[in-house]
Amino acid sequence: MKVQALRGFRDVEPGEMLVRERMMDAVKGVFESFGYAPIHTPALEYAEILLGKYGEEGEKLLYRFVDNGGRDVALRYDLTVPLARFVATHPELRLPFRRYHIAPVWRAERPQRGRFREFYQCDVDLLGPDSAMADAECILVDHSVLQALDLSGCRIHVNHRGFLDGLLRSLHIESHQHSAVLRVLDKVDKVEAGEMEALLAVEGVTGEPAAVLLGLGNLDGSNQGRLEMCRARVSGNAGALDALGRMEEVLAVVLEAGVESGAVCFNPAIARGLDYYTGMVFETFLPPEYQVGSVMSGGRYNGLIGMFSGREVPAVGISLGLDRLASVLQTTKSSQLPGVTRVLVCTLPGAEASGAGLAHKIRRSQGGRGCGVELYPHPVKLKKQLEYAHRSGIPWLVIVGPDDLARDVVQVRNMESGAQEEVSLTNLPLFAFVGEAQ
Amino acid sequence: MKVQALRGFRDVEPGEMLVRERMMDAVKGVFESFGYAPIHTPALEYAEILLGKYGEEGEKLLYRFVDNGGRDVALRYDLTVPLARFVATHPELRLPFRRYHIAPVWRAERPQRGRFREFYQCDVDLLGPDSAMADAECILVDHSVLQALDLSGCRIHVNHRGFLDGLLRSLHIESHQHSAVLRVLDKVDKVEAGEMEALLAVEGVTGEPAAVLLGLGNLDGSNQGRLEMCRARVSGNAGALDALGRMEEVLAVVLEAGVESGAVCFNPAIARGLDYYTGMVFETFLPPEYQVGSVMSGGRYNGLIGMFSGREVPAVGISLGLDRLASVLQTTKSSQLPGVTRVLVCTLPGAEASGAGLAHKIRRSQGGRGCGVELYPHPVKLKKQLEYAHRSGIPWLVIVGPDDLARDVVQVRNMESGAQEEVSLTNLPLFAFVGEAQ
Repeated sequence: MKVQALRGFRDVEPGEMLVRERMMDAVKGVFESFGYAPIHTPALEYAEILLGKYGEEGEKLLYRFVDNGGRDVALRYDLTVPLARFVATHPELRLPFRRYHIAPVWRAERPQRGRFREFYQCDVDLLGPDSAMADAECILVDHSVLQALDLSGCRIHVNHRGFLDGLLRSLHIESHQHSAVLRVLDKVDKVEAGEMEALLAVEGVTGEPAAVLLGLGNLDGSNQGRLEMCRARVSGNAGALDALGRMEEVLAVVLEAGVESGAVCFNPAIARGLDYYTGMVFETFLPPEYQVGSVMSGGRYNGLIGMFSGREVPAVGISLGLDRLASVLQTTKSSQLPGVTRVLVCTLPGAEASGAGLAHKIRRSQGGRGCGVELYPHPVKLKKQLEYAHRSGIPWLVIVGPDDLARDVVQVRNMESGAQEEVSLTNLPLFAFVGEAQ
Repeated sequence: MKVQALRGFRDVEPGEMLVRERMMDAVKGVFESFGYAPIHTPALEYAEILLGKYGEEGEKLLYRFVDNGGRDVALRYDLTVPLARFVATHPELRLPFRRYHIAPVWRAERPQRGRFREFYQCDVDLLGPDSAMADAECILVDHSVLQALDLSGCRIHVNHRGFLDGLLRSLHIESHQHSAVLRVLDKVDKVEAGEMEALLAVEGVTGEPAAVLLGLGNLDGSNQGRLEMCRARVSGNAGALDALGRMEEVLAVVLEAGVESGAVCFNPAIARGLDYYTGMVFETFLPPEYQVGSVMSGGRYNGLIGMFSGREVPAVGISLGLDRLASVLQTTKSSQLPGVTRVLVCTLPGAEASGAGLAHKIRRSQGGRGCGVELYPHPVKLKKQLEYAHRSGIPWLVIVGPDDLARDVVQVRNMESGAQEEVSLTNLPLFAFVGEAQ
């Protein structure tokens, strides 16, 4: 037997998990400050709930099987279809309903570097009114998450599908081509102009219409200026003008909320690849030095949540790219992220019980707000205990030996400076490491 | 198509999930204060990793299937076998290794009231030395969790398998009977004396040996007194005496750590039903009014973690009964658990953008430490917005209307007292609800 994790899956080790936990704590705190609350749905659903929702290609990636009771079941592929199922099976739910859901999903994709068959999704959605206030709230949640994760210089790019639909119509691109063309437009930030032209040509869009679409990504000026240019492009198309009006309202709320100018841009080239968006769409870009694509994206999708319940449930939401965000935080912040453990208590033979007791007293000092304290749980040679502290990046040592204890003192060493001092047992719970930033 | 959650599975709604999230935050905080860090392992493992580990009955409950790539796979059944696999596939791991893992497991049990096919386990384990310091640490983690969850009057009952083995031997009960007899003894707190006698008789234990075993649960006196009585029972059996010596050391550490007297009891009748324990075993009982069994239990299991790696890896750990703990907190604490949202911002027509902006300014006031603020995301009739606040238990309303805004004021209403006052926009971020206990 080969002892290994399943192909395409992976373990996450403590160091990486701690970064993720801190990140998720921050993110949840933001969600909850807006009134969003978590839900849980099962990992397994009846297969028929998931079938026909993800296209032919997506469906092939389902982990689908027959269970012991003969039921046709599948592991969830995303968190959106389970949300729609949740809404249908909880008719008592009243709107507006704000929920977030952080959970793994499973897709049997071809394993690639950095892509796994099990990964976490983090969705936050506001079900209920189709309003500028609701749309703007999504942008404010997005912006607050960036602040909470201390990521500066980010930009949130917003657009509206209603504008794009009107524009394509005014360019005489037929309805059945729209989703293919939008999928090409979605690549405008990722590929060269020449390749974009070739891709549009494949969809039958050339000449002036192609030039207009390619130009969308390069409109200069303020949000207001870009809105005016776009208005001129779709004059006479009431739906598209309404869409631009909604954008203007959303931007007004963002301004009222005190978001710094430049953080949220109206970008008429933002399309999002998925068919189900019906209104605002947005993406979130970190400064180029992070070398990572959009870390949060989403929009309004009014047709999806009602798929099982029969009633239309307008919805707007964000999907957070947890893996991308974690990799950014891992590289940029992990060195600043202090380990939880501030102190390693080392014991010499004969001081085991006292050392273990002392460790707990430091941990619980100041009414349980002391600090993270690890005990080296065996009185091995002090050198080995020091190595452990060094390897684990623990900044302080408390060395407890029987001779010192007879004098009611211990030795406290700072691992960075190497400075060591004798501290009385009475003073120990008041020592500098207690209450240090964790 | 019937739209429903899979049979034997369930959704968890926001109210219950918030209690669980708060509980898990508290629990993780305790774990991390001792130096434990989270890990992740995949939901799916190669079936051969899990087969042969859970007995015939357990194995039938595995969700096992062949994936699209022809691999024989299964959803995890617990978190212990995956930990053993993790240790074997990460030979770089150095001991002592402290990890916790909170994740769902899947078992195709017959659905029953309160028992589901998907449930969360929460394991915390210290791999490395087989020492009294390590054993005692488990007890201190257990005790700290109870404190963090504000559960008073709990008792942790500890025992040692080495003592029980020696005792059974001194009672001339043969080795091959030991695990069956221990499984009976494990029921001593749950069934009547008469039924215990009958169950022991089935295992061939009657007369004096049965009386000794039944008497284990009723030994009076202090921890020290019970230890002495047990010592007398196994005099001459070196292994059993060592075990009692270990118990004495563990209790000494607990005492040194300042745990209140009576919170940790040496109880020689504690057996735990599982075969794999090799040393200390313990269970945690809430006061009888909670009407719930052991909420945390565990012990030392030195043989299990090395099952794949070939090297023996001593281990001691705790399994937390999250569902039991959550149900206790739900009934006793949920009324005291304030919702996250302190304020609902209601808007009247014409004040949408200002209201939405104001909501965010309250939320972000005091450097992002403001308070949870929900926006009613649509300017429906005020009555409907009030109903929402009432139904959601939100204690404060801020009502934003265009006429008030023209005078730079809003109306603030306390939902409990019904008192309403006019507050200037300047004073609003300093109003009483900001910084209220969350």
